[in-house]
Amino acid sequence: MTRIASIHRVPMRHPGDVSGVAALIEDGLDPAGIVAILGKTEGNGCVNDFTRAYAVQALSVLLAGRMGMTPEAVAERVAMVMSGGTEGGLSPHFIVVSVGETSAPPMRALAIGIAFTRDFAPEEIGRMAQVNATADAVRAAMAEAAIDDVHYVQVKCPLLTSERIAEAEARGATVTTHDTYHSMGLSRGASALGVALALGEAATVSDAAIGTDTSLFSGCASCSAGVELTRNEIVVFGNSPAWAGDLTIAHAVMQDGIDLPAIHDALRGAGLDPGGGQLAPDQAARLVALLAKAEPSTSGRIRGNRHIMNDDSDINATRHARALVGGVAAAATGRTDLFISGGAEHQGPDGGGPVAVIARKP
Amino acid sequence: MTRIASIHRVPMRHPGDVSGVAALIEDGLDPAGIVAILGKTEGNGCVNDFTRAYAVQALSVLLAGRMGMTPEAVAERVAMVMSGGTEGGLSPHFIVVSVGETSAPPMRALAIGIAFTRDFAPEEIGRMAQVNATADAVRAAMAEAAIDDVHYVQVKCPLLTSERIAEAEARGATVTTHDTYHSMGLSRGASALGVALALGEAATVSDAAIGTDTSLFSGCASCSAGVELTRNEIVVFGNSPAWAGDLTIAHAVMQDGIDLPAIHDALRGAGLDPGGGQLAPDQAARLVALLAKAEPSTSGRIRGNRHIMNDDSDINATRHARALVGGVAAAATGRTDLFISGGAEHQGPDGGGPVAVIARKP
Amino acid sequence: MTRIASIHRVPMRHPGDVSGVAALIEDGLDPAGIVAILGKTEGNGCVNDFTRAYAVQALSVLLAGRMGMTPEAVAERVAMVMSGGTEGGLSPHFIVVSVGETSAPPMRALAIGIAFTRDFAPEEIGRMAQVNATADAVRAAMAEAAIDDVHYVQVKCPLLTSERIAEAEARGATVTTHDTYHSMGLSRGASALGVALALGEAATVSDAAIGTDTSLFSGCASCSAGVELTRNEIVVFGNSPAWAGDLTIAHAVMQDGIDLPAIHDALRGAGLDPGGGQLAPDQAARLVALLAKAEPSTSGRIRGNRHIMNDDSDINATRHARALVGGVAAAATGRTDLFISGGAEHQGPDGGGPVAVIARKP
Amino acid sequence: MTRIASIHRVPMRHPGDVSGVAALIEDGLDPAGIVAILGKTEGNGCVNDFTRAYAVQALSVLLAGRMGMTPEAVAERVAMVMSGGTEGGLSPHFIVVSVGETSAPPMRALAIGIAFTRDFAPEEIGRMAQVNATADAVRAAMAEAAIDDVHYVQVKCPLLTSERIAEAEARGATVTTHDTYHSMGLSRGASALGVALALGEAATVSDAAIGTDTSLFSGCASCSAGVELTRNEIVVFGNSPAWAGDLTIAHAVMQDGIDLPAIHDALRGAGLDPGGGQLAPDQAARLVALLAKAEPSTSGRIRGNRHIMNDDSDINATRHARALVGGVAAAATGRTDLFISGGAEHQGPDGGGPVAVIARKP
Repeated sequence: MTRIASIHRVPMRHPGDVSGVAALIEDGLDPAGIVAILGKTEGNGCVNDFTRAYAVQALSVLLAGRMGMTPEAVAERVAMVMSGGTEGGLSPHFIVVSVGETSAPPMRALAIGIAFTRDFAPEEIGRMAQVNATADAVRAAMAEAAIDDVHYVQVKCPLLTSERIAEAEARGATVTTHDTYHSMGLSRGASALGVALALGEAATVSDAAIGTDTSLFSGCASCSAGVELTRNEIVVFGNSPAWAGDLTIAHAVMQDGIDLPAIHDALRGAGLDPGGGQLAPDQAARLVALLAKAEPSTSGRIRGNRHIMNDDSDINATRHARALVGGVAAAATGRTDLFISGGAEHQGPDGGGPVAVIARKP
Repeated sequence: MTRIASIHRVPMRHPGDVSGVAALIEDGLDPAGIVAILGKTEGNGCVNDFTRAYAVQALSVLLAGRMGMTPEAVAERVAMVMSGGTEGGLSPHFIVVSVGETSAPPMRALAIGIAFTRDFAPEEIGRMAQVNATADAVRAAMAEAAIDDVHYVQVKCPLLTSERIAEAEARGATVTTHDTYHSMGLSRGASALGVALALGEAATVSDAAIGTDTSLFSGCASCSAGVELTRNEIVVFGNSPAWAGDLTIAHAVMQDGIDLPAIHDALRGAGLDPGGGQLAPDQAARLVALLAKAEPSTSGRIRGNRHIMNDDSDINATRHARALVGGVAAAATGRTDLFISGGAEHQGPDGGGPVAVIARKP
Repeated sequence: MTRIASIHRVPMRHPGDVSGVAALIEDGLDPAGIVAILGKTEGNGCVNDFTRAYAVQALSVLLAGRMGMTPEAVAERVAMVMSGGTEGGLSPHFIVVSVGETSAPPMRALAIGIAFTRDFAPEEIGRMAQVNATADAVRAAMAEAAIDDVHYVQVKCPLLTSERIAEAEARGATVTTHDTYHSMGLSRGASALGVALALGEAATVSDAAIGTDTSLFSGCASCSAGVELTRNEIVVFGNSPAWAGDLTIAHAVMQDGIDLPAIHDALRGAGLDPGGGQLAPDQAARLVALLAKAEPSTSGRIRGNRHIMNDDSDINATRHARALVGGVAAAATGRTDLFISGGAEHQGPDGGGPVAVIARKP
Repeated sequence: MTRIASIHRVPMRHPGDVSGVAALIEDGLDPAGIVAILGKTEGNGCVNDFTRAYAVQALSVLLAGRMGMTPEAVAERVAMVMSGGTEGGLSPHFIVVSVGETSAPPMRALAIGIAFTRDFAPEEIGRMAQVNATADAVRAAMAEAAIDDVHYVQVKCPLLTSERIAEAEARGATVTTHDTYHSMGLSRGASALGVALALGEAATVSDAAIGTDTSLFSGCASCSAGVELTRNEIVVFGNSPAWAGDLTIAHAVMQDGIDLPAIHDALRGAGLDPGGGQLAPDQAARLVALLAKAEPSTSGRIRGNRHIMNDDSDINATRHARALVGGVAAAATGRTDLFISGGAEHQGPDGGGPVAVIARKP
């Protein structure tokens, strides 16, 4: 038997609406094969965005019922990565990632590798311990899934809380920051640099570079921090000669938020033709998922012109960035159900970010 | 002597920063030739957006000093149309429109026509009286400027206030709405339908159609309502065989918020080549202004996928729409100093809108 | 045996945190006795506030587990009314309302009456059919619980959706509005007027008065509309000579958003002494719940001075109103875990609203 | 002749509406006597709040016309301190502070002292150089105005900009922070500690304490940072035996955001009687100005209950704090035209702040 990856994209009417996932299972998708669910929910994507946890709770209850286990066991087994924020025209949706078997012979196709690091001590978060453990896990996932061509690495990583900091300091350990919000960025950044190390995108990384040296980055990493875990959970998306199926993945790196040519490169890499600029409907129908990172440039400028993202006290800067990149990606694809995510420390260059495309072969 | 239009686009560091306009005058622009200034300011573009009035005040004080007249006289003479909202990556800027003379022979070139309607009684706003007077004024501006090819009509129109409603009702007249915010949309809509009548885009209009029949629209109109005036002020942008200069204008109609091909059409119409999707730097440098209208679709969908613009109580729907269209237009042009404006009643189809491009000939 | 009402107020760390309710049950509260749970969650309290549904889902899962029934059965049995919005200093919390029995003799004490109307047809919502059915249900709840002194009536009511409107119109019926958001206000208003009829606060009501005649209101009603039901669910809080326990309830009507004396009246009515202005700590400890409605005045003024609530396009008017009334109520009580709710159509006078206080006797 | 202070509070219809100030001058107020104008404008009070600069520009143009000088000369002469944010029910208004002469004999009355520090080098901002110069200026203003009883010190102070930082570093100097937003807080904090030193509220201050040691604070200071100046401008409000008039001032320190008793203390200190909680109308009419600082507690709690101010990514924490304190102060006074300002580093204890009351004697 040969392994085969499937990707289903289903809309949600609200963050608790898992009827699309339920319908997939009713239509025959084996819930036991689900290894990850990515979701784009319609919250603010910032501190008080509870749409993410609400969606995870709804998914856990659904899958627990379908799989005959507790919601906690589901959460242990399936990587559920919710990204808040559907600014501009973005459309809320889930991306269900599952792995099955087929009697077809191996051929080069989309493959999924999963790995988890050990639990991190608080003093390891945002530091080289997290970088190195992430790099090891990425390599393990690649090896296990026989992936020789990585294009997208989704990492879910922990953050520091007041309790965790206190626990570490009671032992005499020191943490990298006392600002729990800032720890999210450092954990994402360390995770991304771990991906960069594993993929050879960076040769060396040091504690001092994490969160500061923007020249070091991965063009494949997409990291999100969550309070509910203490380890890194890693899903590697790539192509493998040992899998089967009609899906393929490619990626490119946007140099800034309006880098349409980079998105075109990723589309073409996955076998789609944007022609004069936007995918024609038949091509758009073969686009299974577009996953990109968005960030405001710290310079306050895009190609020399001032943007106001960093100075807006009414709308968070990351919301502006997602709206912008969402518009550019919709221009390229003619679709709005795109996974545009914010918080791109060491994930692409300053103001830019990775963009990956999964497509069905013709 | 032949008339010649010039368009200068200058950045602003904040809504009161008119140093870019001052520099134009110091560099030789005759302030007496300025007929209109459009501005994209960084407010919310909604009710309590004071960045627009702040910019107008700063421009009035500047021009009053340069022209030796009172700020009130400047406001009477120059149409100052501020559009709030630079969501996503949009960059705040002014577009200074001026008319001069040249000894060059006439050739087909960008021409600017100006006209004002009479003052409207409150009961005329949002009704056929406003439609017809606007249509007449558009025709007059076209005739005066010898424009035979209209591409963009900027209209500044009045709105109902509690005082104006009371004055009308004291006379026994009835107004079209008691909701002053709603009157803005009706005034914009009536103005746009006047443009549509003048340009032959609509054959007939009735009171009942204003604000309701979305099948009636102009593909050239861009209307904004302001409390400071009681007449319609109209600036017609088109090409004329009787003017001179190296500028030209074209337009297209976006069918929805992600209609990249329509933007490409407008660019090509103005002699720019978007090639594989985005203007190359030399082409982008010849783009003098892109002016577009953005609106959320009332269906709540874009090509079948749900958007959340109309349900977001944190960010106004028009802000999402500007961010989206701004992203799509930036994808096409490689620039972010674009005049994307909201509030598009009868200005393009539901969820879409006009897009005009002014470019310098090679 | 005599009936006895208990009220427990527990904090929540986030909208999905039901650990406080779980702890009550572990400490001996019989989950089968819970008749209602009110929650103040930290969303925006407007259209896209998913913290309410998230909290309901979390409560349903918890109670289903504790009571051995499905979450749906729990929702059918327990009225769960979540009010979003903890602006200013308000503190998120649940108020658990339960009914038990005691061997103590009857005495005048807090009593809880529950009633449901029949399901409404879409064309009945926001009209006299809903008013009259609500009035009947309030009377029934009062009779069943032997309440002769009503102070607070919590109503959960339905709203119109596009589907419900279409169903009605397919039958040839007409609905009161096609604006689904507006239907929430009309449903709340009709429900409040039903309470007013039942309590004799209004003598007659007509379809035309619903949503327009602000002189008609209930000083006891607190209504919230939800998409998940098609009937009205009613919880009447009052005092009864046939119940027992050490709780009592009183209310007053705030004439505007800064009516501190009205709050003092309600406190005193429930046996608490605000003394020079704010409850001393021992008195504040006896305050079991304060429930109030907040609304911006439509005049745009408070005692002659302009407020900006209705003109703010960044923050919804109801958020400002909750913040204001929350501050005034915190001034009176020295507490911030107060149930201040928005959307007060026909619930108190324009710009004001009911305030009820449940207190423990000394 | 004896010096006499006058305070006029006038409403504004929008941030550019200075008609109330114009009416004062037409009614006889000598514009040459105006020493300061405080304004509560309806912006967000944060980074992109342009209502402050808009109001200053409108005031400068008005006063320049009335006084026959340039707007720049007006800004040099009159301290114009705009505080953005009228959340909850707060009402936008100007407070015009002027000094004149009277033939009445000296008596204990409100007195106003003005002083300016020298210009600060960038490396001095947020450090002891600013603290000490502020302390000296406060003492000088007190001496000049013969104030022996200080209750409120308004300080307008500079901040670091990228240009100023670069200038300093080019000279080899180091600045206290590279985060320009953070420099606003440090400048406010250093200014407040200067006030505390001058008034004996703090015995010693060090560079290390600025921005970190919240136990050091002034109960009279109210500081705001602005980009348009490089010195500190100080307006001391107190009582003096050498002035005349029927105004008096008092103050108290709120220990948290719901400290109604502290507001009562300040009211009583100024001769007003809050009676059972709220000033009666005749007393409220004698309230000339209430000036208070508001800040979210860094603990995330108020008297043990969680607040959500610091976790809200939709509404800035300072906006919640102003709404809360505005509600509490409105409860005490029965008025909403109150000067509640955010950003209270070293201005009162953590989560609390100074509150000053200026009242007319009976």
